[in-house]
Amino acid sequence: MLRQATHILPIRASRPGLHEFTDSAANWVAESGISDGLLTIFCRHTSASLVIQENAAPAARRDLERYFEHIAPEGAGYEHRDEGPDDMPAHLRTALTQTQLSIPVSRGRLQLGTWQGIFLFEHRRSTPERQLALHLVGE
Amino acid sequence: MLRQATHILPIRASRPGLHEFTDSAANWVAESGISDGLLTIFCRHTSASLVIQENAAPAARRDLERYFEHIAPEGAGYEHRDEGPDDMPAHLRTALTQTQLSIPVSRGRLQLGTWQGIFLFEHRRSTPERQLALHLVGE
Amino acid sequence: MLRQATHILPIRASRPGLHEFTDSAANWVAESGISDGLLTIFCRHTSASLVIQENAAPAARRDLERYFEHIAPEGAGYEHRDEGPDDMPAHLRTALTQTQLSIPVSRGRLQLGTWQGIFLFEHRRSTPERQLALHLVGE
Repeated sequence: MLRQATHILPIRASRPGLHEFTDSAANWVAESGISDGLLTIFCRHTSASLVIQENAAPAARRDLERYFEHIAPEGAGYEHRDEGPDDMPAHLRTALTQTQLSIPVSRGRLQLGTWQGIFLFEHRRSTPERQLALHLVGE
Repeated sequence: MLRQATHILPIRASRPGLHEFTDSAANWVAESGISDGLLTIFCRHTSASLVIQENAAPAARRDLERYFEHIAPEGAGYEHRDEGPDDMPAHLRTALTQTQLSIPVSRGRLQLGTWQGIFLFEHRRSTPERQLALHLVGE
Repeated sequence: MLRQATHILPIRASRPGLHEFTDSAANWVAESGISDGLLTIFCRHTSASLVIQENAAPAARRDLERYFEHIAPEGAGYEHRDEGPDDMPAHLRTALTQTQLSIPVSRGRLQLGTWQGIFLFEHRRSTPERQLALHLVGE
């Protein structure tokens, strides 16, 4: 019989950029009592986002952070500047990446590939605490 | 006992760009009789897309529209031009944003953050009526 | 009564770029015995991704491939180069598109729009076999 579970996962990045939280999500799933189903992670913010990326090479992570600094830069003549120079680029980088991810779960484990990690992509320099809403449906 | 509900939400933007429909989605969820679960919104088009963004500052919305006009511009020497100069940029902007979003629902309410709104991102100047397929699973 | 089904769909692109697999996904759904629900497709890789795009015009597909070659190019001074010049652009193009898609299913059919196809976006020149994890919940 299918059932569901929910959780709010608070998370705070130590610095702007990619912050892996695969273990926190996997641990909650393992404790949920649901071994087969679908996990959804929803980021409740517009200046931080989600991305699944290579979890092995720190250089790949740095390249990705630099890429988004380049493609959605600060100081590009934005109209919306009330909340600081890193605010509008944060919204753009959020739009270009993900606010939500769903990942199948089998036998209590996330069906991630060998090299995949789940990351919070923190776009603000102030790195406020973020809330991720987790939803799991399965049996 | 889990169950599901579905709906086709027709929506027409008044102009190209971001068009908020958070209330329409929330109202359908409230009337569905399912108070806790997962809402999925699927955009059945390749020249309009979905984005969750800041719903308070109109300037942020304008900056976001200008950014996508800049990053995936018209007239960039595209091979596919049969359907007008705004067609290929529409496909690119769709690929860069979202065709589908899933949002947890708790006690009858979408678990959006304080500043999050759900937007149709209309990329065509003709602004045809769009169909969003909604799916809700829960109890 | 809701239930779920899962499947691993192996897929290998014949060349880098967009590779449609709509029929493979639709056929699995049709054989699952679940006629109404939600299909989730999860790409278990960080150098290949998913995109829903126009399935009629080959020129649109070529424009989209060229666009991503342009916006996340090879040889842009990346720090991470161990796995070849096409590796870091592959991660960036993956971050800009989708790792996961969920599509409502009604009466045994994916609720795609008329012009929508589901594509694997292969970013590596070696085109290794990829695994897509499928999850279907419904009745």
